Amino acid sequence: MKTFTLLLSCIDRPGIVATVSSFIHQAGLNILESNQFGDPKTGRFFMRVALTTADASVEVNQGDLKEKFKSISDSFEMDWQIFDMSVNTPAIIMLSKFDHCLVDLLYRCRTGTLKMDIAAVISNHDTSRELVARENIPFHHIPVTPDTKQAAEAQIKQIITDTGAELVILARYMQILSAEMTDSYPGQIINIHHSFLPSFKGAEPYSQAYHRGVKMIGATAHYVTPNLDEGPIIAQQVVPVRHDMSVENMIGAGQENEQSVMARAVRAHTEHRILLNEGKTVVFD
Amino acid sequence: MKTFTLLLSCIDRPGIVATVSSFIHQAGLNILESNQFGDPKTGRFFMRVALTTADASVEVNQGDLKEKFKSISDSFEMDWQIFDMSVNTPAIIMLSKFDHCLVDLLYRCRTGTLKMDIAAVISNHDTSRELVARENIPFHHIPVTPDTKQAAEAQIKQIITDTGAELVILARYMQILSAEMTDSYPGQIINIHHSFLPSFKGAEPYSQAYHRGVKMIGATAHYVTPNLDEGPIIAQQVVPVRHDMSVENMIGAGQENEQSVMARAVRAHTEHRILLNEGKTVVFD
Amino acid sequence: MKTFTLLLSCIDRPGIVATVSSFIHQAGLNILESNQFGDPKTGRFFMRVALTTADASVEVNQGDLKEKFKSISDSFEMDWQIFDMSVNTPAIIMLSKFDHCLVDLLYRCRTGTLKMDIAAVISNHDTSRELVARENIPFHHIPVTPDTKQAAEAQIKQIITDTGAELVILARYMQILSAEMTDSYPGQIINIHHSFLPSFKGAEPYSQAYHRGVKMIGATAHYVTPNLDEGPIIAQQVVPVRHDMSVENMIGAGQENEQSVMARAVRAHTEHRILLNEGKTVVFD
Amino acid sequence: MKTFTLLLSCIDRPGIVATVSSFIHQAGLNILESNQFGDPKTGRFFMRVALTTADASVEVNQGDLKEKFKSISDSFEMDWQIFDMSVNTPAIIMLSKFDHCLVDLLYRCRTGTLKMDIAAVISNHDTSRELVARENIPFHHIPVTPDTKQAAEAQIKQIITDTGAELVILARYMQILSAEMTDSYPGQIINIHHSFLPSFKGAEPYSQAYHRGVKMIGATAHYVTPNLDEGPIIAQQVVPVRHDMSVENMIGAGQENEQSVMARAVRAHTEHRILLNEGKTVVFD
Repeated sequence: MKTFTLLLSCIDRPGIVATVSSFIHQAGLNILESNQFGDPKTGRFFMRVALTTADASVEVNQGDLKEKFKSISDSFEMDWQIFDMSVNTPAIIMLSKFDHCLVDLLYRCRTGTLKMDIAAVISNHDTSRELVARENIPFHHIPVTPDTKQAAEAQIKQIITDTGAELVILARYMQILSAEMTDSYPGQIINIHHSFLPSFKGAEPYSQAYHRGVKMIGATAHYVTPNLDEGPIIAQQVVPVRHDMSVENMIGAGQENEQSVMARAVRAHTEHRILLNEGKTVVFD
Repeated sequence: MKTFTLLLSCIDRPGIVATVSSFIHQAGLNILESNQFGDPKTGRFFMRVALTTADASVEVNQGDLKEKFKSISDSFEMDWQIFDMSVNTPAIIMLSKFDHCLVDLLYRCRTGTLKMDIAAVISNHDTSRELVARENIPFHHIPVTPDTKQAAEAQIKQIITDTGAELVILARYMQILSAEMTDSYPGQIINIHHSFLPSFKGAEPYSQAYHRGVKMIGATAHYVTPNLDEGPIIAQQVVPVRHDMSVENMIGAGQENEQSVMARAVRAHTEHRILLNEGKTVVFD
Repeated sequence: MKTFTLLLSCIDRPGIVATVSSFIHQAGLNILESNQFGDPKTGRFFMRVALTTADASVEVNQGDLKEKFKSISDSFEMDWQIFDMSVNTPAIIMLSKFDHCLVDLLYRCRTGTLKMDIAAVISNHDTSRELVARENIPFHHIPVTPDTKQAAEAQIKQIITDTGAELVILARYMQILSAEMTDSYPGQIINIHHSFLPSFKGAEPYSQAYHRGVKMIGATAHYVTPNLDEGPIIAQQVVPVRHDMSVENMIGAGQENEQSVMARAVRAHTEHRILLNEGKTVVFD
Repeated sequence: MKTFTLLLSCIDRPGIVATVSSFIHQAGLNILESNQFGDPKTGRFFMRVALTTADASVEVNQGDLKEKFKSISDSFEMDWQIFDMSVNTPAIIMLSKFDHCLVDLLYRCRTGTLKMDIAAVISNHDTSRELVARENIPFHHIPVTPDTKQAAEAQIKQIITDTGAELVILARYMQILSAEMTDSYPGQIINIHHSFLPSFKGAEPYSQAYHRGVKMIGATAHYVTPNLDEGPIIAQQVVPVRHDMSVENMIGAGQENEQSVMARAVRAHTEHRILLNEGKTVVFD
């Protein structure tokens, strides 16, 4: 049986749920999971519904569903999407030297625990080439200097276009993307920043944390926007640290945390559980 | 504006959500929060909807709502309740000597963070009398010996009846209630057991944990059934322990954890977020 | 049997532990617990040793111990203290309107889970008077306006002097102390800030957290210095938040977290487990 | 500079720390880290000291140190060991079909975050052969049936002997080792059991957890003894679960938790931080 996910947002007003759930029932679909949220601050309503065919013999396709849903979405002026859940999200992973997040994503994709296909891996270093080759995934070494940055980003964009990637994961990619680049993919680039944002933005957050003497270090997964480390936050996690830990100890202790928060964010994104809400996220998990 | 909560369960079949949400829309109500779950194992469907009047000028009362909902609930053979959220749940707290859970509940009720009114406190010891008197809550000292147990339970039942209590919280009450007693209040008695159930049932769980050498101790809030410490679990939490902690240290470390898990369970119960599902709970939080 | 705690720091060099432990052995004392830390960054060595009389018939007093230890401490140029652990730390609690931290401290002191005696409670509001009176603890209502601030601080200092308080706990006290005041009590004033510092310093951190859209909120216990919310951090904790939580929900969810982090910090301080290390803390727990 | 770790236990009596620390000082060594614990229940004293040469020009070797320490250890009747911390622990990993723990250990060894060399991987299935081959580590497929069990264990023992392995990690190895086997390697076989022991011993703990309706699932790392899942516990961790999670969801959610608890246990073991204490562990972390 096929499974679909309907994701929508619109201005909040009475009757949305009644209308949507009647549509679902009439379309011969069953609700597997349903989440909704009305934000009193922004006045917007957000909804996610996971659907399956009520009767195994009935054939439902994504195109028909979209066609039928159009009159509803028009009357409520909805932003909406319907996803066929049997289709994995094609994604590109970008990293610099630290490869623990890459290793983790490769393993989770190989074992099918993330609904994602890695279309390519891009790095400004050549160190992960062999690791990626083993998995038969294309690896692109694209060095970045101030002079070559524009060309490098053009090359990255070309790879995104060529592979049809719908998600870019900055899995400890240490270069800052241009505003032109980040504006091209709103809500489609996830970055893992190795601090509990908004603390310790920018470079070397573990070193910043060490010098401030905090007792917990964090990691944050967020969508990338032109403002560095200020994009909508998807997930955050922390681990305790002690006075006897060096910066290197913190880096080590933080790696598992970064992997974990990244996996949670990627899972939520690829299961279509996230909606943007004016600089914040609605995460239906 | 009034707020209501509709809580229901029934055999899962197509059209439930569509029917219920159409009813809500036609009743002039808005959905504040909605949760649902279809259990593929038991074949039952569970739903909770928080509702408010869409238009402040419209007067809606609980009786009318129930009357109108009856035809729907009959056709789906639902177990259901509608609660007026402006009404606090009347509750009775029972304890023995340890009073940290009582203190916590008294404070949370006084400051209005729990939607509960404490109608009476019952203890088999007299030690908490003054503490309870300060809050102008009736205190009943009902000692229990094997010989007096039946009479004591009769007395407790009388207090439940007299106060109209709809919830009994065993906040470290160290007597075992008879099956006759627990069967009289299914899903209405919450016990805090100071272990991570099903580990360490029965007496002195911290001592059991100490001797086993576990590295975390837990606390469990569950509904009481005739089988000791085997009722449906509502919430669980753990705290780490170290090799250098004595049983007394563990008792101390566990108190905050017990308070916390109890508060979560009582909040979920009094906000009508819990449904029973064959020995397990569905908790919409 | 008596228990003592020796707390020391000095420039790190070979032989410190050997010298100190020989002293302890010769003084007829047993080591119950020992912690040490050499900071490669600052070059300082930190040590805490909990001691008890090896032989119950031997009488050891704090004065004698200090006298004997003097030659060692002189030769290593140690900062050091010896505490008699049967003596509770006299403390003053300061708060504004939110009283959940006060309630928690009163309970923990009443039940003896903190080695602290509350000598007085000071508030710039009169709302907690009755709560404090019940415990037979002096309550001082000292309102603060820009004009009266200096006089108010003089009055607070007088109370500290009169009661012999060795610790001041700002348990959600919403006034900023002057540099003159904080400099007078280095390492003796603990503040509970309701954010995960260094994020969201200053006023209304939960509101700041709400607007940034973080997925966890925190609380930080730190020693107060003239730089607002920048003093040495003692303990930090976080709790998860969701997109559907309002600022008020966050305030509610954070209260238990604030109590918990405060209790941990106060326990560590009153058990003499904390040493200052250039803007950071060494916490031997 | 060289680093050593001294690990000892003996009957508790006055003077141990003074004697040991004087020895260390006279041997020209500095203390990097020191932990101790006297168990009032068993009357035993446990100590771990990390040591480094005080003067870079001084050559100290493990053999000399051991020789010198012998008179002290004899007089206190100590169980003791001195480890050269530049030497990694040689280990064997055993698994069945689930390979997430293996993948995690391979990565941590490759990146040097665990002080361990994987000498061989043994499985009763052939599925991980390629994964292990990539890392140039010998892989042994040793199927086990009731008839071949004795022979299989003989073969495993031979591999342990041949490789000089000092640690065996059962990284989701689903066969039960014989008492004869486990008795041969006391404190040297670490098992990862996918439950919060003592709950849900034996087969299919996630399924057991699902049916009981717990709200958290756990994982436990422990030393293997002849009594199944009853050996001394090293580390435990939990993750929350919800009513809408199937057994399969729990298996997925638990994997990261199993990896994490295993890594903590292996780190503690290979950094020589664990001592056995009558069915329990002392873990100096």
